[in-house]
Amino acid sequence: MITVLVIGIGTGSPDQLTTEAVAALNRTNLFLVPDKGADKHDLATLRRELCETLIDHDRYRFVEVPDPDRGPDAERATDAYRAAVAEWHAERARRYAATIRDQLGSDGTVGFLVLGDPALYDSTIRIAESIRDDGRLDLAIEVIPGISSLSLLAARHKITLNRIGQPVHVTTGRRLPEEYRPELGDVAVMLDGSLQCKQLLPKHGDLTIYWGAQLGLPDEVLISGRLGDVIDEIEAARNAARAQRGWVLDIYLLRP
Amino acid sequence: MITVLVIGIGTGSPDQLTTEAVAALNRTNLFLVPDKGADKHDLATLRRELCETLIDHDRYRFVEVPDPDRGPDAERATDAYRAAVAEWHAERARRYAATIRDQLGSDGTVGFLVLGDPALYDSTIRIAESIRDDGRLDLAIEVIPGISSLSLLAARHKITLNRIGQPVHVTTGRRLPEEYRPELGDVAVMLDGSLQCKQLLPKHGDLTIYWGAQLGLPDEVLISGRLGDVIDEIEAARNAARAQRGWVLDIYLLRP
Ligand SMILES: C[S@@+](CC[C@H](N)C(=O)[O-])C[C@H]1O[C@@H](n2cnc3c(N)ncnc32)[C@H](O)[C@@H]1O
Ligand SMILES: C[S@@+](CC[C@H](N)C(=O)[O-])C[C@H]1O[C@@H](n2cnc3c(N)ncnc32)[C@H](O)[C@@H]1O
Repeated sequence: MITVLVIGIGTGSPDQLTTEAVAALNRTNLFLVPDKGADKHDLATLRRELCETLIDHDRYRFVEVPDPDRGPDAERATDAYRAAVAEWHAERARRYAATIRDQLGSDGTVGFLVLGDPALYDSTIRIAESIRDDGRLDLAIEVIPGISSLSLLAARHKITLNRIGQPVHVTTGRRLPEEYRPELGDVAVMLDGSLQCKQLLPKHGDLTIYWGAQLGLPDEVLISGRLGDVIDEIEAARNAARAQRGWVLDIYLLRP
Repeated sequence: MITVLVIGIGTGSPDQLTTEAVAALNRTNLFLVPDKGADKHDLATLRRELCETLIDHDRYRFVEVPDPDRGPDAERATDAYRAAVAEWHAERARRYAATIRDQLGSDGTVGFLVLGDPALYDSTIRIAESIRDDGRLDLAIEVIPGISSLSLLAARHKITLNRIGQPVHVTTGRRLPEEYRPELGDVAVMLDGSLQCKQLLPKHGDLTIYWGAQLGLPDEVLISGRLGDVIDEIEAARNAARAQRGWVLDIYLLRP
């Protein structure tokens, strides 16, 4: 029997994993890594180093599975778009299933390392289901939760995500401008390639923003304050962070 | 200098803590425990056992601080109500500050163990700020994120909280009936003493519910399905769980 472990690794710093996640790494025989090409290459390196640090044996392998083609980015929500994503995932799943059969036969444990928590804006659980269904592989899936970038943002700013008795809304940069209303409560924004909160400035410049980039990495940056006052500083910090690594991961909370 | 560590302990099972949280337990000299009287006594026991399991020295103490009076429960949102909560917190903070001065003088590390993640529906960060401000104690606050019951719910059901590109809304049982709209995306409900999702049955019985109670405890229960079909089964399971322990902690996600 094949077991697939979907392992939340937080920011990938060894002390951000739970004991359960460390045990899951140690149970894994085969780590499958989507090969996304050159960009974000240091995240792949980070995963390997994490395993070297936390696994106390050498009975595991890393295998990169080439992506069929760069997948559509995961933010839109039309039906045609969903179908395209699904077909792309199915093709990828068949490749993963073939790799698992080659490497393990019908018995062993496969691990996927997921940044943050597999429950938030991540497709690995769907990939695992698709390996089972489209790749026709008999497998058991286990999910090990991790510290999401959202939890870490709150911890770093020493805030709760909600105000007393109020809701929290988590959305994407793409959706934010049309979706934003103060009644949503505190609004957390992920997957925002271009600080869509700037669109809220005319009407909602008084919001408080808690922003963080490269959380958990040595070049982590935090900025908070009145949206209208700090947006330029945030934009400059974001550009600087991206200039340094070639990419930037950032997240923020907007509080009325 | 006094350091206050607000430590997320997930469900309190030792393998649900991060390495950072375990290190934080080991740095703590004084654990402060709100004395909430007899109910939920097994949660207090759980915290002590956790420390015995995970701390590798005996240079720490547990001190219970009697609550001024049972605090108002944290779900309403009127101004008067907020003021009452604030004054109750201020009085509690003065008691905590006095205890810290008695026990540690002006130097040492205080730990608060928070179930789940301190960022979600928890007042410990505010208490720590209030010990500093109302209790006039010079202190540095650090927050260590934990696995929230929301992450664990998703992991157990092997689902993401959001659908592709869609938002997630986190709210309380009290707010759910008036707040619910399908456009909110997937809606997670915490602090619900009486399955308020029943109020949605007439219009939204087709929602899929992913429900979990006593997550991470030996008597954990999971139920999922079409809201209209499984609500009776959930209510029965919830009553049974409460009958067994005297209390029940449950959480659910509603997906259109
Ligand atoms: C595809 S989602 C994955 C989220 C991940 N599963 C989690 O729980 O954090 C990627 C988004 O997460 C956020 N993110 C991930 N890692 C981050 C980091 N280290 N610092 C800041 N934001 C991060 C950013 O908003 C980014 O666009
Ligand atoms: C005061 S809030 C604290 C939440 C906590 N900080 C967290 O991150 O999970 C308490 C609510 O969390 C949820 N909860 C906490 N522990 C739980 C558990 N073990 N199983 C299910 N729900 C739980 C329930 O909805 C409960 O009403």
